[in-house]
Amino acid sequence: MSRKIAFIGLGIMGSPMAANLVKAGHHVTGFNLTQPQIDALVAAGGHGATSIADAVKDAEVVITMVPADPHVEQVILGEGGVLENAAPGTLVIDMSSITPQTSIKVEAAAKEKGVRTLDAPVSGGEAGAVEAVLSIMVGGAAEDFAEAKPLFDALGTTVVHVGPAGAGQTVKAANQLIVAVNIQVLAEAVVFLENAGVDLGAALDVLGGGLAGSTVLNRKKANMLNREFAPGFRIDLHHKDMGIVTDAARAVGAALPVGAVVAQLVASARANGDGSLDHSALLRGVERLSGREAK
Amino acid sequence: MSRKIAFIGLGIMGSPMAANLVKAGHHVTGFNLTQPQIDALVAAGGHGATSIADAVKDAEVVITMVPADPHVEQVILGEGGVLENAAPGTLVIDMSSITPQTSIKVEAAAKEKGVRTLDAPVSGGEAGAVEAVLSIMVGGAAEDFAEAKPLFDALGTTVVHVGPAGAGQTVKAANQLIVAVNIQVLAEAVVFLENAGVDLGAALDVLGGGLAGSTVLNRKKANMLNREFAPGFRIDLHHKDMGIVTDAARAVGAALPVGAVVAQLVASARANGDGSLDHSALLRGVERLSGREAK
Amino acid sequence: MSRKIAFIGLGIMGSPMAANLVKAGHHVTGFNLTQPQIDALVAAGGHGATSIADAVKDAEVVITMVPADPHVEQVILGEGGVLENAAPGTLVIDMSSITPQTSIKVEAAAKEKGVRTLDAPVSGGEAGAVEAVLSIMVGGAAEDFAEAKPLFDALGTTVVHVGPAGAGQTVKAANQLIVAVNIQVLAEAVVFLENAGVDLGAALDVLGGGLAGSTVLNRKKANMLNREFAPGFRIDLHHKDMGIVTDAARAVGAALPVGAVVAQLVASARANGDGSLDHSALLRGVERLSGREAK
Amino acid sequence: MSRKIAFIGLGIMGSPMAANLVKAGHHVTGFNLTQPQIDALVAAGGHGATSIADAVKDAEVVITMVPADPHVEQVILGEGGVLENAAPGTLVIDMSSITPQTSIKVEAAAKEKGVRTLDAPVSGGEAGAVEAVLSIMVGGAAEDFAEAKPLFDALGTTVVHVGPAGAGQTVKAANQLIVAVNIQVLAEAVVFLENAGVDLGAALDVLGGGLAGSTVLNRKKANMLNREFAPGFRIDLHHKDMGIVTDAARAVGAALPVGAVVAQLVASARANGDGSLDHSALLRGVERLSGREAK
Repeated sequence: MSRKIAFIGLGIMGSPMAANLVKAGHHVTGFNLTQPQIDALVAAGGHGATSIADAVKDAEVVITMVPADPHVEQVILGEGGVLENAAPGTLVIDMSSITPQTSIKVEAAAKEKGVRTLDAPVSGGEAGAVEAVLSIMVGGAAEDFAEAKPLFDALGTTVVHVGPAGAGQTVKAANQLIVAVNIQVLAEAVVFLENAGVDLGAALDVLGGGLAGSTVLNRKKANMLNREFAPGFRIDLHHKDMGIVTDAARAVGAALPVGAVVAQLVASARANGDGSLDHSALLRGVERLSGREAK
Repeated sequence: MSRKIAFIGLGIMGSPMAANLVKAGHHVTGFNLTQPQIDALVAAGGHGATSIADAVKDAEVVITMVPADPHVEQVILGEGGVLENAAPGTLVIDMSSITPQTSIKVEAAAKEKGVRTLDAPVSGGEAGAVEAVLSIMVGGAAEDFAEAKPLFDALGTTVVHVGPAGAGQTVKAANQLIVAVNIQVLAEAVVFLENAGVDLGAALDVLGGGLAGSTVLNRKKANMLNREFAPGFRIDLHHKDMGIVTDAARAVGAALPVGAVVAQLVASARANGDGSLDHSALLRGVERLSGREAK
Repeated sequence: MSRKIAFIGLGIMGSPMAANLVKAGHHVTGFNLTQPQIDALVAAGGHGATSIADAVKDAEVVITMVPADPHVEQVILGEGGVLENAAPGTLVIDMSSITPQTSIKVEAAAKEKGVRTLDAPVSGGEAGAVEAVLSIMVGGAAEDFAEAKPLFDALGTTVVHVGPAGAGQTVKAANQLIVAVNIQVLAEAVVFLENAGVDLGAALDVLGGGLAGSTVLNRKKANMLNREFAPGFRIDLHHKDMGIVTDAARAVGAALPVGAVVAQLVASARANGDGSLDHSALLRGVERLSGREAK
Repeated sequence: MSRKIAFIGLGIMGSPMAANLVKAGHHVTGFNLTQPQIDALVAAGGHGATSIADAVKDAEVVITMVPADPHVEQVILGEGGVLENAAPGTLVIDMSSITPQTSIKVEAAAKEKGVRTLDAPVSGGEAGAVEAVLSIMVGGAAEDFAEAKPLFDALGTTVVHVGPAGAGQTVKAANQLIVAVNIQVLAEAVVFLENAGVDLGAALDVLGGGLAGSTVLNRKKANMLNREFAPGFRIDLHHKDMGIVTDAARAVGAALPVGAVVAQLVASARANGDGSLDHSALLRGVERLSGREAK
């Protein structure tokens, strides 16, 4: 069933996602702060809007994909924003990665206007967005999830409803927590193995085959062996996400003794100028702590 | 080619390993501090010895599988031990999990007597030993590894030569480091998700499918969901192993900021009476830190 | 020289501070959300206001003393707040403990209205406020500090100008960081000493006399020896402050590997129901981690 | 009352301590692996020995002051060592800084020979040894402590009996734990304050006057302000001591979540080439983590 969708935020992630919705047969009207991305969407078969209001006015579904909490607050809650312009009954799906607390705040504000919301952050990066193989973690009401499911299926391959408003963001935060720690301990193991004179390639092969195996080990092994840290997922972004993780865990009284240390180490990597490298470059921080020149 | 093997240490791991060597056609003479295990080996087609000296005197290969560093020192280096009784040229394979430093010390002492050594700790637990699907990480000379390879193949499915003397132990230590940290961060994520009201089963499914996926998540998910902590691998043993990890990393100047914190948390689990539970019970420690009654 | 002062926030700290300003000969008009505190100030020789606007309208100096960042934002920046009502040239002194970032934001907003600001958080607790022996850490312009110095001298004994806007809050945050960590390590030492069978009282005496000596050790020794945790300074408040510390350090790119761990342990103490105990009760968390029943 | 004392180990600490015992009227026979230190003791009014046996044969009291656990084991327990040569009833006082476990082992071995022992590590450094103002923490029997008290009083000003065998070492370890952590958090505070643009000298003054005050802050403030890291107490030595702390705490089941992190940071400082600097140079590690060139 074709839907009338407003898509706000046509960045690195938003642009291919909006295009994939067009491909799936939907009527997609995009808005972005800069014009070239709008033009690209039009070229791909979508429609352009001159403002959030213009995009939202006839939409059944509004999707937002912006960088961080303040942008979500401005775009959805602010003057001239989505809630000011959306008709009652509209379904607003925020796919940005932000704190669960902000998603909950958005839901409460929307409810007052009769607008329904889902928080649906994604993982899988630019490649996942282009190829429509994202993982999508969704918080909100079950019936709204059911309604949005066909749209999500046009964007990703793993689409899961994980709980009420904010739950999508919480799962995304947990994802980033686990990934950062799994990378950090792999980095500690690498420096330990190298310092001890072990054949690192052989060691990582055997480690990967047992209980120490992980997707991080599989996908980041080559980065670590070759010290090639072209992103992938940038440390700057993981730094932002670790801020979300520690804030959100604090808000619900969950202890993160290891997560808190790793948040410091991610921040340290950034402070050392590694912010635009892939997050596997946490290895460079362990090298620095171990008195080795980061290669 | 059938070899004459002395097997010292017929415990939970050593007994099935010795039996598997018998099955593979080798002449295996076993010794253990208690008799029933020797009798069992004889019943399985092996031979019994009355002392280490008796077991070792005609052996081409000696395998030791004992609990910890002091036992290795006593059994191999001590009075009446392997080195006093082994003929020059014998290959001594220590499959215990100990510090790399002790393996290096054993190699040096053996060399003085013309005895060759390999350190070859395993992972995979009792089930892996019984089913002959262990992972075996081997340190020592390449030609000695080549000679021992057929024996290892009778015991496990992943058999890798990872470097000189001690390297096998280093890789085993790295394995235990990664496993402990991956469990700990999964536990932190579980408490965070539950406190936030997320559907944990759904969340772990989506997490497992992305970059946060790991063998720990796959194999320990049910333990965490159901709070079933029957071992598996006991926290007491992982506590011993984290002592090896931190000592060995200190010896080679490798920083383990996260590993050191997790070593404390494993010790804390043990101090709280969880030593005989599966290591996935690190979850109980995160619950305690978060003010929840550990279930 | 007598000044006309508006004092907003007559809580546990604000009430005795306002009274001390009255004693020092100033004309103090107080406002609080609840009336009894205003009545008490009037009884002490001060004056009462019916609103922030009413308190501020004729004031030369406005002092605010409220619980946290949102209260400061509301009271100073919000509708009907200080900035809406203060005449250009007024000096607004915020003595609340908040993030440096909010103090900087307040300064910027005030500047647009020609209003001057100082951030001047205090340490020393209720007793220090009553006895006028607070330590006051002041950020802002040197000439504004000089003008306010006589007022501060009526409230405390250690009054230091430490830098530009926000600097007072930064120093307060650093104070709370050091105090929390010094308490935590003392607690770790106490459990270590007791577990080892040492005479704790004798040990703390000798530790206090050497390089391990600290004001925390002197003042909290009795709490720890006797497990008496009546506040003092509550863990709930220190938890709030550790949130300020980690946020503020993150904002300026300073690594807090130990501070971040201790922030988690303070949060854990709170989650375990110790929030209303003195911060020396961090000892109970170390006991829990060590498998001892917190006494 | 003049005693006949054998003094084994005339290093940087032992030499002035032996000389102070001579000054106090005792008959001191010294032994050291190198001759010049023996000659210096003779020149100061003491006596020289040609071996441990020679020094110990007529001694009522034997004092040992050597670098680490292996030296204590060799000098006291080894062939030709103190226990082989001391008459029953001799009092052996080990003033080295070692693990409590080794002190307990020494006591047990001595008891079998009817020899009494005290563990009596010191703090205060070379200057404290020269000026006889050491702090001395003593473990062992109360009556042996009473007998040794006059000797300790010739060496230090703070002399405390803290418990049974090993207790002196435990308190020394606790001292080093607290000192390392207090330095580390001061370093974190310094980088935080500087990054925020605060006047560091003024800030440290106000911090020192409140609950954040400590002997570390008083004595190391100038090192940190001026980045002058001439020892003082070297990071290499503190690294050795943190190894004792973590081992000893592990042995008695005490959790050191913060101590373990700081042990890693001390090790990191050493790995970065700062081992021969004063321990206040932990500041350089925080600077590195914060992306600043360590000055």
